[in-house]
Amino acid sequence: MTGLPRHPRFVSLEGGEGAGKTTVLNALREALLQDGREVVSTREPGGTPLAEQIRELLLNVPVGGPGQERPAHEKPAAETELLLMFAARAQHVRETILPALERGAWVISDRFTDSSYAYQGGGRGLDIAFIAELERRVVGLQPGLTLLLDLGVAQGRERTRGRDLAFGNGPDRIERERDDFFENVRRAFLARARAEPERVRVVDASQPAREVAADAVAILRMFIARAAAETA
Amino acid sequence: MTGLPRHPRFVSLEGGEGAGKTTVLNALREALLQDGREVVSTREPGGTPLAEQIRELLLNVPVGGPGQERPAHEKPAAETELLLMFAARAQHVRETILPALERGAWVISDRFTDSSYAYQGGGRGLDIAFIAELERRVVGLQPGLTLLLDLGVAQGRERTRGRDLAFGNGPDRIERERDDFFENVRRAFLARARAEPERVRVVDASQPAREVAADAVAILRMFIARAAAETA
Repeated sequence: MTGLPRHPRFVSLEGGEGAGKTTVLNALREALLQDGREVVSTREPGGTPLAEQIRELLLNVPVGGPGQERPAHEKPAAETELLLMFAARAQHVRETILPALERGAWVISDRFTDSSYAYQGGGRGLDIAFIAELERRVVGLQPGLTLLLDLGVAQGRERTRGRDLAFGNGPDRIERERDDFFENVRRAFLARARAEPERVRVVDASQPAREVAADAVAILRMFIARAAAETA
Repeated sequence: MTGLPRHPRFVSLEGGEGAGKTTVLNALREALLQDGREVVSTREPGGTPLAEQIRELLLNVPVGGPGQERPAHEKPAAETELLLMFAARAQHVRETILPALERGAWVISDRFTDSSYAYQGGGRGLDIAFIAELERRVVGLQPGLTLLLDLGVAQGRERTRGRDLAFGNGPDRIERERDDFFENVRRAFLARARAEPERVRVVDASQPAREVAADAVAILRMFIARAAAETA
């Protein structure tokens, strides 16, 4: 518990590579739209024009130009990566998430602060207390509901390999990390779920995509029903 | 006092717009080179390829393309600006400053952490305790000597206007702030000098550029002589 306010119309999706976040996001969006709600779906790092440019610096190390093998810039240090993630998130919260919540819309974000605990905390080994301080200082809110799409690292790899082959994409800078990095990320995500079980709900993402999406929608519907009962 | 280690071959230049940092940096560099020392001169935000790209996001809000008046991205929020500055600094320290110091070179940086206390703390009103926490967590060292080129806001404006006309440049995003912003920046810089008088030395930058540079070189020579006496 960080003691930060949780917004009941703010949902985040978390999980490793290949867990099916995009399919789930579309299913949740569809369910909310059918109820006649406005939905803003967004992603991290990103979600505003400036934050998307920060995403580029974080995930891509582009080569200098035609025929040049040399990257356009060096890899970010772990501390640089952490601060770039929170810089993008500070902007995302202020420019996209809060304005949408304030006008009554639902917001579904593909990744949010839990990803920093998992990737920069669990994966890179940065101090969790510092991450919590950044969350408190520049984020200032949590989702009311977080769906953690949990999947074994090997199975996730398998799925992203298939996706990359199908779409001709290569993995981004963080996707190129080693398996022990992703094992640490997964462990950190599950620790978040254990620490805040009423906010972070674990979905078994090893199931077929349709079943994962159905589970996620069912959890969302229960979350809405409970919130309605509490305010009734 | 932050209690951070100060490196005796690391010098930073601070001050508002038009204070003559470039002239002073060249004079200090020349003085050290004449003594047969290796000198790395660098700047913030920037100092590595990635940090220079972060600088672009911070200082320029480029328009979208030919004929488009719309900026390519929105202005950073104060918190975003602070974290982008420290992200760039974390990278600068690890990629440029520490490697240079470790091989025995001198480093002169046009701006360093004091600028964040002045611009994001004094100017934007962000909490100084948070800035100190970022300094401790991701910077971890201070210059042995900081020269604060102090100049009245009106006189600084006058000088940058002349420079912009001569070179056909426009002011960057931060240079376009109002006078009360820069008065707060100046006050915060002077507070840094009062708090750490043996590190931060104030130079009267209202003098002609040559005299400012001569004062700065004299202070550097005294700093070196004292360090030599202490280790003798």
